[in-house]
Amino acid sequence: MADTSHPKSSVLPTGGGQALIDPSDALILLLDHQSGLFQTVKDIPVADLRRNVEMVARLATLLDIPVITTASEPNGTNGPLMPEIHRDAPHAVYVPRKGEVNAWDNDDFVAQVRSTGRRTLIMAGVWTSVCVMFPALDARAAGYDVYAILDASGDPSEMASRTSLARFVQGGVRPITTNSLLSELHRTWARPEAADLAQLYALAAPNYGAVIESYVRAQEAARQSS
Amino acid sequence: MADTSHPKSSVLPTGGGQALIDPSDALILLLDHQSGLFQTVKDIPVADLRRNVEMVARLATLLDIPVITTASEPNGTNGPLMPEIHRDAPHAVYVPRKGEVNAWDNDDFVAQVRSTGRRTLIMAGVWTSVCVMFPALDARAAGYDVYAILDASGDPSEMASRTSLARFVQGGVRPITTNSLLSELHRTWARPEAADLAQLYALAAPNYGAVIESYVRAQEAARQSS
Amino acid sequence: MADTSHPKSSVLPTGGGQALIDPSDALILLLDHQSGLFQTVKDIPVADLRRNVEMVARLATLLDIPVITTASEPNGTNGPLMPEIHRDAPHAVYVPRKGEVNAWDNDDFVAQVRSTGRRTLIMAGVWTSVCVMFPALDARAAGYDVYAILDASGDPSEMASRTSLARFVQGGVRPITTNSLLSELHRTWARPEAADLAQLYALAAPNYGAVIESYVRAQEAARQSS
Amino acid sequence: MADTSHPKSSVLPTGGGQALIDPSDALILLLDHQSGLFQTVKDIPVADLRRNVEMVARLATLLDIPVITTASEPNGTNGPLMPEIHRDAPHAVYVPRKGEVNAWDNDDFVAQVRSTGRRTLIMAGVWTSVCVMFPALDARAAGYDVYAILDASGDPSEMASRTSLARFVQGGVRPITTNSLLSELHRTWARPEAADLAQLYALAAPNYGAVIESYVRAQEAARQSS
Amino acid sequence: MADTSHPKSSVLPTGGGQALIDPSDALILLLDHQSGLFQTVKDIPVADLRRNVEMVARLATLLDIPVITTASEPNGTNGPLMPEIHRDAPHAVYVPRKGEVNAWDNDDFVAQVRSTGRRTLIMAGVWTSVCVMFPALDARAAGYDVYAILDASGDPSEMASRTSLARFVQGGVRPITTNSLLSELHRTWARPEAADLAQLYALAAPNYGAVIESYVRAQEAARQSS
Amino acid sequence: MADTSHPKSSVLPTGGGQALIDPSDALILLLDHQSGLFQTVKDIPVADLRRNVEMVARLATLLDIPVITTASEPNGTNGPLMPEIHRDAPHAVYVPRKGEVNAWDNDDFVAQVRSTGRRTLIMAGVWTSVCVMFPALDARAAGYDVYAILDASGDPSEMASRTSLARFVQGGVRPITTNSLLSELHRTWARPEAADLAQLYALAAPNYGAVIESYVRAQEAARQSS
Amino acid sequence: MADTSHPKSSVLPTGGGQALIDPSDALILLLDHQSGLFQTVKDIPVADLRRNVEMVARLATLLDIPVITTASEPNGTNGPLMPEIHRDAPHAVYVPRKGEVNAWDNDDFVAQVRSTGRRTLIMAGVWTSVCVMFPALDARAAGYDVYAILDASGDPSEMASRTSLARFVQGGVRPITTNSLLSELHRTWARPEAADLAQLYALAAPNYGAVIESYVRAQEAARQSS
Amino acid sequence: MADTSHPKSSVLPTGGGQALIDPSDALILLLDHQSGLFQTVKDIPVADLRRNVEMVARLATLLDIPVITTASEPNGTNGPLMPEIHRDAPHAVYVPRKGEVNAWDNDDFVAQVRSTGRRTLIMAGVWTSVCVMFPALDARAAGYDVYAILDASGDPSEMASRTSLARFVQGGVRPITTNSLLSELHRTWARPEAADLAQLYALAAPNYGAVIESYVRAQEAARQSS
Repeated sequence: MADTSHPKSSVLPTGGGQALIDPSDALILLLDHQSGLFQTVKDIPVADLRRNVEMVARLATLLDIPVITTASEPNGTNGPLMPEIHRDAPHAVYVPRKGEVNAWDNDDFVAQVRSTGRRTLIMAGVWTSVCVMFPALDARAAGYDVYAILDASGDPSEMASRTSLARFVQGGVRPITTNSLLSELHRTWARPEAADLAQLYALAAPNYGAVIESYVRAQEAARQSS
Repeated sequence: MADTSHPKSSVLPTGGGQALIDPSDALILLLDHQSGLFQTVKDIPVADLRRNVEMVARLATLLDIPVITTASEPNGTNGPLMPEIHRDAPHAVYVPRKGEVNAWDNDDFVAQVRSTGRRTLIMAGVWTSVCVMFPALDARAAGYDVYAILDASGDPSEMASRTSLARFVQGGVRPITTNSLLSELHRTWARPEAADLAQLYALAAPNYGAVIESYVRAQEAARQSS
Repeated sequence: MADTSHPKSSVLPTGGGQALIDPSDALILLLDHQSGLFQTVKDIPVADLRRNVEMVARLATLLDIPVITTASEPNGTNGPLMPEIHRDAPHAVYVPRKGEVNAWDNDDFVAQVRSTGRRTLIMAGVWTSVCVMFPALDARAAGYDVYAILDASGDPSEMASRTSLARFVQGGVRPITTNSLLSELHRTWARPEAADLAQLYALAAPNYGAVIESYVRAQEAARQSS
Repeated sequence: MADTSHPKSSVLPTGGGQALIDPSDALILLLDHQSGLFQTVKDIPVADLRRNVEMVARLATLLDIPVITTASEPNGTNGPLMPEIHRDAPHAVYVPRKGEVNAWDNDDFVAQVRSTGRRTLIMAGVWTSVCVMFPALDARAAGYDVYAILDASGDPSEMASRTSLARFVQGGVRPITTNSLLSELHRTWARPEAADLAQLYALAAPNYGAVIESYVRAQEAARQSS
Repeated sequence: MADTSHPKSSVLPTGGGQALIDPSDALILLLDHQSGLFQTVKDIPVADLRRNVEMVARLATLLDIPVITTASEPNGTNGPLMPEIHRDAPHAVYVPRKGEVNAWDNDDFVAQVRSTGRRTLIMAGVWTSVCVMFPALDARAAGYDVYAILDASGDPSEMASRTSLARFVQGGVRPITTNSLLSELHRTWARPEAADLAQLYALAAPNYGAVIESYVRAQEAARQSS
Repeated sequence: MADTSHPKSSVLPTGGGQALIDPSDALILLLDHQSGLFQTVKDIPVADLRRNVEMVARLATLLDIPVITTASEPNGTNGPLMPEIHRDAPHAVYVPRKGEVNAWDNDDFVAQVRSTGRRTLIMAGVWTSVCVMFPALDARAAGYDVYAILDASGDPSEMASRTSLARFVQGGVRPITTNSLLSELHRTWARPEAADLAQLYALAAPNYGAVIESYVRAQEAARQSS
Repeated sequence: MADTSHPKSSVLPTGGGQALIDPSDALILLLDHQSGLFQTVKDIPVADLRRNVEMVARLATLLDIPVITTASEPNGTNGPLMPEIHRDAPHAVYVPRKGEVNAWDNDDFVAQVRSTGRRTLIMAGVWTSVCVMFPALDARAAGYDVYAILDASGDPSEMASRTSLARFVQGGVRPITTNSLLSELHRTWARPEAADLAQLYALAAPNYGAVIESYVRAQEAARQSS
Repeated sequence: MADTSHPKSSVLPTGGGQALIDPSDALILLLDHQSGLFQTVKDIPVADLRRNVEMVARLATLLDIPVITTASEPNGTNGPLMPEIHRDAPHAVYVPRKGEVNAWDNDDFVAQVRSTGRRTLIMAGVWTSVCVMFPALDARAAGYDVYAILDASGDPSEMASRTSLARFVQGGVRPITTNSLLSELHRTWARPEAADLAQLYALAAPNYGAVIESYVRAQEAARQSS
């Protein structure tokens, strides 16, 4: 699975980043995060799932990474896309489909992906085993480097979830989670977006929000008493 | 456990509400929801805990139910109160303590409770087994009718959580959860706050938010196609 | 909790049934089993919940026990009642409500209960902690003997489920499950409905269906080879 | 729940045993431990359930406590009684039933119980919520002191199991487990059966078997090297 | 694991389907779904397992995919095949075995597979680790492309289930679940079977049934009020 | 369960402490915390159990509360008492037994309890269902106010653990956990032992240790930069 | 991982067995199943672990497969080997070690393995991650075909257990479970050992024992009534 | 994944150790074990995590294996390093970072690693999916042999934990746990450090501590009575 054929702009002289995502080559695909499908997700609570997707949308906006969304018939039983995505990633491009379950079956979707020129696809969706799995495997077959964000996606059972993880690995798709995507694109605190990124960590790991609150108050108290 | 000595204003001719909370007699006590203590909670994810507490705060504001908050030394290791409470329940009264673990040990706190004239106390806090349990048992001993909201509270282990539930029941404290509090105070959709209450259900049960989204879109689609 | 004031027609000379439900005094109340609310249930899989409710409906029909159903606004977000109930218990009476969350707040519902003359109420619904809890507690206050079927009901979290169980016991409501209700009304295999009842056990405990299949085939094989 | 009306022969001058089972007044009832029903048990693995029942049978034999067994139609789908019971407790009396689900409905069974003159009934069976619950509640109503051994019994779901525990407590039945029954009847190591009882602990808590094995070998090794 | 040697009829110009099952090359093998073996399954509830197998049978019939069934001695302890399979897939061919545990050891079975000319084998059965694993590995060795449907199969422990998943991946067998098989064969809603397929989703993910019910009612309500 | 007959020295003018433990009346009993028995504990990890017992020992020493320990034959298979108890509570009195399983059966043990003149007994031990349960029930029968520390005790299964909790409540024993005992005896931070007590919280809830570490460092950092 | 270099005597004309264990080439290695180590196992109950090991021993004897056992200092803290192994597999050869943790480090052990001439090693032991992992990886490096029986082995945590499974697969070791080993060596019911093998299935999957009991009784009943 | 290019000094004539870590080539990297990050860990209790890290530190000191530590801004919200590491491994070298999330991005860190000349890197840290994953993958890309200690690391969810395990394996990183590291470096009891190593086993598997205590006492008792 040597996907390192193209040189990465983000590799440092230390070799750091050699095996990591190159943000300048990354494209985020958010697939079928629809209210009807959410009801069938059983491997993650829906509140956590939505908060993770929201994190991805905000991260993409903050770091200027392109986003494509799609949905299978949002006027049908599957319901509308969760509105947080386009609210928090206003630059995201929505591609309607014509009944295809697999987004990679849809001409417009694949054309939109190709138009970005990017070769590292970061995918999330509901169901993981279908709406993420099918385009992920097809994109691998087409030579893309593919990442699946497991906790910004959802499957209808724990068994389906474990099975998806195994099939991703078997098919050469790299499994990640919301918190690691944040860190992998973030890379260093020595950048202007640091304060905004800190806020995103509280979404990816809610206890971190309380860590920040305690820290700020402890320092205020120390300064007042000093 | 005959707490029905005082007539309830909320009992209907059907007898409905005879055994339920009388909102006009209710007082909400939010105890030690502090960022440092949140890190030790292991019977509910901190994001769920905070969302449930936020629901309680918003419900109190919507239905005009008095709220008292307190914290054990917010400049110390226990950290500051979660800011959502006073943001969403601006009418809440904060009572500082002087080192007492048990809020019922504190003169000002008990005086503030008494000043409301209300006899039905609805409590939540961290830890359940301490910050809720101690004042709950003491308030029972003082003749109050006491409810403990288990999922707007938190304990440091599953075993502590089960033990708290048993000790509440043993001591005559009534155990409830955020969703049932909402319904128990809400009582009927035939009231002006109905639309606002519907929003609160999406906090108490996040899947309900997606139910609403699907419903609205299905109706829009039906109207567009009709 | 001495609910044995009225003589039970089902008590045997051995004393058997003294502490059990008297079927001739029983009334089944099925409360708010609606498709929208089902999405928020997290203490039992929805397929199991529906199968259990279906069992209750079929049992009521088989043993001629009256059933009352109700729903909070089935044209609203909560969705329609699951159709299996009235399909399998065509004698069930549906009572619409006027926005009340608590069925016991509704005049028509309470009147319908009273009209049956029965004093043993067997309740199930979604949410357990609300749609079952409130009328169960109010019915206890009104002197009824009340049973709650926990697995023909549903709550939005495991913590809510455990809390409901504790509050039922605290309030003098007797907690049961679908399988025990079946046996408690069934009482003896020496009755004409035995073959039909056997089918219901396969609903209440699906492995029992396979037990029957194996048994029938083993006997067929023995007869063929004998 | 003052069940201490009759003086206990096992109470010591210290008051020890005042609140415990009096072995000389105890009668063990093993209800419907049948191979077909075992397949529906979901709150304990069937191997553990059978080992626990075997422990109870062996304990009864060792301490000379009477045992009554019964089964609902062992030639039917429910299958035969597990053979270990009568193998390990050859003094057990089997009472066939005539189709009654509740053993307390059966004349012969209740007569057999009464004939022993014992008033402390220790019950186990499958299902807990039915085959144990019904006679347990009826026996309580008839004035017996009743114990239910939860892990020598089985229920078709975790929810049914939790519900049974709550209903036992509500109905004044005392819940115990196999290991505590062993200790409660055993009471002291200063008795001739001590070595045999030690073997039973390895059944009630399999890790204890390995504790004994390690201990014996450690002592042998010490003696050899000393 | 490049199994894409033969051109797939189902690959679209976008490249969609390149890495997915080609329905025209697919053959479904249902192995030993017998009532006796079901009692030993511990990684999925038997009701869910049967519903998933029923889904596979109905899907095969709807999309005209050949099915072969087999059983190890259905007159013996393993019991009869679950009747739903041949009821819902009347075109399925049953191949009896002569005592072989591994279906691939049986001449008739392998001959029947070969006679279809299909090279993509989709297998499910009880136990996963035996009745699916052995023919799956042997079929891989014989050059077939093999899929194992994990939740239409069953294993006797969670540990066995996780081990089977790992061994499948290690052996080049592709793990899938019932819901993903449905979508992978379905591929597009723009086909005549769409309405029937929608029904199958309610089997593969029961909450989806309630999604449909809510949707239909919401639209009816909108039309009535418009 | 009115255990408030004797006036408590720890009740404040607010009524705080009315329903809580009076430290000056408390006696801690640590029963059979032996290395061999630890191997059979399955409701809490042994490292957590020992850390909780260590906390109790240190708390007793810090607040000068008497402690009695006992063990069933420490030279036998049950093994020696965990050494941390007498190391951290050097004032603890060890009472050997003569083979009795129930410490309340032993003359010396009961005499030692009586000699303290204290009426509030706080017990922990292994097994919960035996070594704690039996003396707890007997002490209740003898008129003592009894608390059982569930997580400084251990039972051989989760089912035994749940059963013990229910039996304690049924028998009028108050269930608590290590963290709540610490807070219930501690009562206020305005006391000389405050710094030492803070250390004990890190034992009762290990995340609290990290809260303190973060707090101290945050304040140091604030002071250095101010 | 092409381990099929040597022709297998057990491959049938159908190709069945091509990818399975060849019994005539198999050697079973049971490593460090010692009473002291059992206390540290947390990924499987010790009763299940011992029953699975007993099954392996009995299977080896029944099918005449050589067995080698070993232990790290059985007179030390790790304790003696569980006696069931040599009782049920009297042909097993015990090889003592000289302090080596990894059996493959020991000359005598490796020599004993080589002396059998067999190249398919089936290993189980405690801990999985150490006593099985180390010789398994070293044997792979030495060219053996290696299987690890996960549920006849034990690890000190669930995380260790999952990690072991992953490391086995990564290192080319094939993971199996007790039930699948039984079937994989058994292969067909058309052999003289069939009746004895059926008994072993009741060890590998205890519910199967009850399946047999029900079947036998159902046939007896059918014959009696025919 | 043939990482065996360099000859290992620890390989024995038997071939033992061929596939294991060579201690003389090993370097331990402990990454970001900071008090603030600990609060976000959800796949292992923090007390277990710290005890495991402490074991690694003590093992490194005992066996003289070099250790490098690092932290992302210990004066910031992430908090200070846990002090146990440098206390127990005083030879560890701390390398501060300049805001890089990935330690491999930092010049000083990579230089320090290279300066040791060692090629086998054993890593642990918080989060597993970030602070361990990124340098682990980059070190693999740079040709190192890399091990990740999963239970001396922590991730913010169970799903993240499972995902990390899969991504490690996919990327050629070898997953291990604390107990297996101890044994893999320890290799034989026939060495002078044996007694000290035995103590470390009680950290890696706390039940082992009780095994030792029982063993010692059993031998003392045997000697006294002999």
